[in-house]
Amino acid sequence: MAFEFERLEKDSLCAARLGILHTAHGTVKTPCFMPVGTLGTVKALSPDDIRECGAEIILGNTYHLFLRPGHELIGSFGGLHNFMGWNGPILTDSGGFQVFSLAQMCKIEESGALFRSHVDGTLHSLTPELAISIQEALGSDIMMCLDVCAAYPSGEPVIKAALERTTRWSKRCKEARKREELALFGIIQGGMYPHLRSQSAYELLELELNGYAIGGLSVGEPSEMMYELVEHIAPLVPRHYPLYLMGVGTPEDIVECVYRGVDMFDCVMPSRNARNGLLFTQRGKLVIKNARYADDHAPIDQECGCYTCRHFSRAYLRHLFQARELLVYRLLTIHNVFYYQSLMSQIRTAISDGNFLTFRQEFYNKRREI
Amino acid sequence: MAFEFERLEKDSLCAARLGILHTAHGTVKTPCFMPVGTLGTVKALSPDDIRECGAEIILGNTYHLFLRPGHELIGSFGGLHNFMGWNGPILTDSGGFQVFSLAQMCKIEESGALFRSHVDGTLHSLTPELAISIQEALGSDIMMCLDVCAAYPSGEPVIKAALERTTRWSKRCKEARKREELALFGIIQGGMYPHLRSQSAYELLELELNGYAIGGLSVGEPSEMMYELVEHIAPLVPRHYPLYLMGVGTPEDIVECVYRGVDMFDCVMPSRNARNGLLFTQRGKLVIKNARYADDHAPIDQECGCYTCRHFSRAYLRHLFQARELLVYRLLTIHNVFYYQSLMSQIRTAISDGNFLTFRQEFYNKRREI
Repeated sequence: MAFEFERLEKDSLCAARLGILHTAHGTVKTPCFMPVGTLGTVKALSPDDIRECGAEIILGNTYHLFLRPGHELIGSFGGLHNFMGWNGPILTDSGGFQVFSLAQMCKIEESGALFRSHVDGTLHSLTPELAISIQEALGSDIMMCLDVCAAYPSGEPVIKAALERTTRWSKRCKEARKREELALFGIIQGGMYPHLRSQSAYELLELELNGYAIGGLSVGEPSEMMYELVEHIAPLVPRHYPLYLMGVGTPEDIVECVYRGVDMFDCVMPSRNARNGLLFTQRGKLVIKNARYADDHAPIDQECGCYTCRHFSRAYLRHLFQARELLVYRLLTIHNVFYYQSLMSQIRTAISDGNFLTFRQEFYNKRREI
Repeated sequence: MAFEFERLEKDSLCAARLGILHTAHGTVKTPCFMPVGTLGTVKALSPDDIRECGAEIILGNTYHLFLRPGHELIGSFGGLHNFMGWNGPILTDSGGFQVFSLAQMCKIEESGALFRSHVDGTLHSLTPELAISIQEALGSDIMMCLDVCAAYPSGEPVIKAALERTTRWSKRCKEARKREELALFGIIQGGMYPHLRSQSAYELLELELNGYAIGGLSVGEPSEMMYELVEHIAPLVPRHYPLYLMGVGTPEDIVECVYRGVDMFDCVMPSRNARNGLLFTQRGKLVIKNARYADDHAPIDQECGCYTCRHFSRAYLRHLFQARELLVYRLLTIHNVFYYQSLMSQIRTAISDGNFLTFRQEFYNKRREI
């Protein structure tokens, strides 16, 4: 089955919109949030947990899976779905961001990125062709073109060179692709320069890929700058393409960027914060280790319907967290991932009901109640 | 509802026997194995996981829960069942063994045990009365009398003094007890001396408690010595009392001690070994980190019906284990706890079918096949 982005309603007062991604492993309602499953597991969750949290699609990291356990091994299982026991859609990143941010050493040449593994120091070369080969072995429903992520902040010449190389690498990715049933998205670069973002978008749109992502944001810039850039970029991408904002973000970021026309998000925030005891609620954040919760019989969030909130008190969760009991990392991750999925569900309902702006206002009002 | 031990079949060729424990939180088929939930959680498992592994009863540690989060807090939840979300029966140990083995300092007097917490060094006194008070606050379906655990090896005078103090403390426990619906078991001490074991058993039987446990075994002595002592002690306890062998043990230990008349077991072995990547199978142990499993598509055990074996390969589990992914500790614990419960179920079926000796022989034959 070929990949398709089905467009549904669009809000009449802003750029928020509904859609459905049709993939080889089923459909995904958009706007969607993809929990991050770096090494073939959304940390602490089983595939059943992920599904019960309401997630329809997850993200896998090409860089991490290439190094451990290797894409050939995963390929021998028929792909990442079988290997990890998740039968829903999977999007994999290109490995570009991790090569630049995690590897011990990274040298970019026109052919590709030469880097040393952060795990064992071994030397590897990630080319656009290899990035596709890895992702096809993983069987990703949505693959990403290898991109060049310049550091933030960087000057205009550096950013321009990076985006132009990203265009050339994206062309090579498209040419290297063998499995047409797996979607291929391009990544718009251009740093914090609107005109370079425009250049990147136009160049990549010429390649007629299956969708487009905004890369190189949420890298340390102020939120307002990110929102302005999304507002600049989103209208450049024709509406029949899904638009994916990579590595974003907080609940506020998601509401603001849905408002500006983004369809897809991913971030380690719900799962990583959970492991650090930082929990999301409709009324803001809750730090479970705080002494005030020591004898608190209430669930994390009275209004939450997740497994954790239906069964356990703050006092119990705090006790487990203080004792570093393994169970707590799963229970808190379930809550945070459920919170994000619930947020996306509320967003979709609001768009469908034609009152996204009201929803957005109420979203902020609730957070001010604490 | 009062505690009751219902006797069912007994094997005609050995001391193996079937029974049912009736408790305030439901029934437990014996012989049974109790997974250990030290701090209000069987490490890495949710209550649903425990149930799905087939366990009907779990063990909580009085010493640990007294120190963290405290029995008053748990009492404010109506007990440990509500606090941790497990609605099945719970047995709690007396705290005696942990005071002697874990505390930073421990001084035994006739009144009780003075000790320093291994968590924060605070000074505490555990008396027989407090041990009961804690266990009643926890709402344990089966409470244990506070016992004195002498070190192994110890000379006869030390062991004799310890068992006699255990008798006096057990009397005080019985007198301190307020909640008659919660069962109270005595712990037979006496070290490796059969005549002292007899003395302890006779003294404690006079108290007419709800059941009896064998303490002070599996403390470093050879297996054969343990089996001989169990063989000596079991016939001393009238058959209408359930007999519980504390802290035991390996699958072999369980088969051998069921053979000699034991009804109840507990041990950290399945869960602790799982966290170290050591797995139980019908054909012996499997070390998941071994390189030979790196590309092994088979489950841990082809004949196992646990969640982990139904969904994941050795290669995937090894990958997660090498990457120290949190999910793996849960998946491996599920397998090992399920293995133990499955072993108990097979044991019960064999006794019921009147062929426990055949089962025992096949149990060993299978393990020799590797």
